[in-house]
Amino acid sequence: MQESSEPQLKIGLCQLSVTSDKKVNNEKARSSIEYASKQGAKLVVLPELWNCPNSSDFIPLFAEDFEDEESASSFETMSQVAREQKITVVGGSVPERSGDRLYNTCCVFSSNGELLAKHRKIHLFEINMEGDITFHESDTFAAGSDPTIVDTDVGRIGIGICHDIRFPELAMLYRDRGAHLICYPGAFNVSTGEALWELQQRARAVDNQLFVATCSPSRDSAGSYPVWGHSTLVNPLGEIVATVGHDESVVVTEVDYSAVRITRESLPILKQRREDVYQFIGLNE
Amino acid sequence: MQESSEPQLKIGLCQLSVTSDKKVNNEKARSSIEYASKQGAKLVVLPELWNCPNSSDFIPLFAEDFEDEESASSFETMSQVAREQKITVVGGSVPERSGDRLYNTCCVFSSNGELLAKHRKIHLFEINMEGDITFHESDTFAAGSDPTIVDTDVGRIGIGICHDIRFPELAMLYRDRGAHLICYPGAFNVSTGEALWELQQRARAVDNQLFVATCSPSRDSAGSYPVWGHSTLVNPLGEIVATVGHDESVVVTEVDYSAVRITRESLPILKQRREDVYQFIGLNE
Repeated sequence: MQESSEPQLKIGLCQLSVTSDKKVNNEKARSSIEYASKQGAKLVVLPELWNCPNSSDFIPLFAEDFEDEESASSFETMSQVAREQKITVVGGSVPERSGDRLYNTCCVFSSNGELLAKHRKIHLFEINMEGDITFHESDTFAAGSDPTIVDTDVGRIGIGICHDIRFPELAMLYRDRGAHLICYPGAFNVSTGEALWELQQRARAVDNQLFVATCSPSRDSAGSYPVWGHSTLVNPLGEIVATVGHDESVVVTEVDYSAVRITRESLPILKQRREDVYQFIGLNE
Repeated sequence: MQESSEPQLKIGLCQLSVTSDKKVNNEKARSSIEYASKQGAKLVVLPELWNCPNSSDFIPLFAEDFEDEESASSFETMSQVAREQKITVVGGSVPERSGDRLYNTCCVFSSNGELLAKHRKIHLFEINMEGDITFHESDTFAAGSDPTIVDTDVGRIGIGICHDIRFPELAMLYRDRGAHLICYPGAFNVSTGEALWELQQRARAVDNQLFVATCSPSRDSAGSYPVWGHSTLVNPLGEIVATVGHDESVVVTEVDYSAVRITRESLPILKQRREDVYQFIGLNE
């Protein structure tokens, strides 16, 4: 395993309160990234759908064509602040318009403001719990088909968005391609959040012996359902390094990549996998 | 998904205190299975290495050649009591001698006492935690290479032993082959037990939307390290249906297989898997 020359870095998780005013959301994102940067963060993660209420009424109106600088104010905000602060930004997600389709898309910017990668949410959220919650994300968004793994100044990072975390296969694919951190911007609702949010993060971290970072909007965000919050960093032993409740907040904490190596040496499960018994294949390289 | 005509059944988890006297262990196993059966259990699970201290000094001495009725007293005990009580027994594990090799083997008996399947632990436990614990199971045992899925009176059951639970691939393979319950006899130590035992069970249950049952020896068992205990049943939502501390105990609780169907309908993650993005292949059918 390669380790960067500085295995320790500060990461910022910006649990933003999303409003129905895009300009306000852009300013909140900018100021929270600046705040995290001032605390020493070299990597900042934003929430899923941070620039737009999570509601089918708003999403088409707030969607951005990233190639149209005039309309792509959230895209441009992330790029600018990454460049100004000289930090890597995992830009949560914003609705992306591409032709006549909408995607739920995470843009990753380098510390010089360049777009390094674009992850279109692969697994859209569908739930049918009678008397509790129903939600069909595919009514609004098209699904992406490409796993996203990106080399940055702060390590090799895999990207998933919210429901993508429910699929161990995606995390295994990122593990196989050398990720030491997976970032999942996400907006679990209070039902699935309480039941699954922490469990899924810890499972992905422990099973693949890497760091998992999540970033959610805050509970009071505009949108169609109450959001769980609880943006969290989990280490390769499955321990919660830092977390927060459901209020608007910026968490700045430390990723120590040497924990990846140490965990893999002391509990060598990745070497113990039995490829004569099962095989896992990631496609769409 | 097929459901049996009686989707609800009682399961017994016998958290036995293992001694260095094999006769005593056989009698404990017999009486605890009888006790669980009297409580209505139609399926009883025993712990990993329930007939033998978990120590390389004892294992070769206590190992049984299952084809030699004279020496295979633990094998015969399980078969007899399954037949007498007319219940399915997932026989934890006992050391099995086969030629010049030893295996850590789980025998599954039908309600007429017939051997239905034999699972030889696939992933042997190796740990190197400086100042805490080191353990190399491969010094004593050879590893099996065959996943074990078995049709019983009480459903289609996948079998893993202890460290097998650390590998999500094995559980995925059982899910793909139609298991609605995975039984993991196991003896985590107190270090990895506190950190991982509950997490791994809940992760396997939630990711594959099936029941997971574990059965451990009790803390005061003879052997080379302190055992975590905490035999547990987890449902397809990742909720703990029943669990126990570290003392000797028999847990009798209920498996309601209709929860598998309901969970898969309300949260259809198995249908949402993206086989165009990743593929998982189980071998050794």
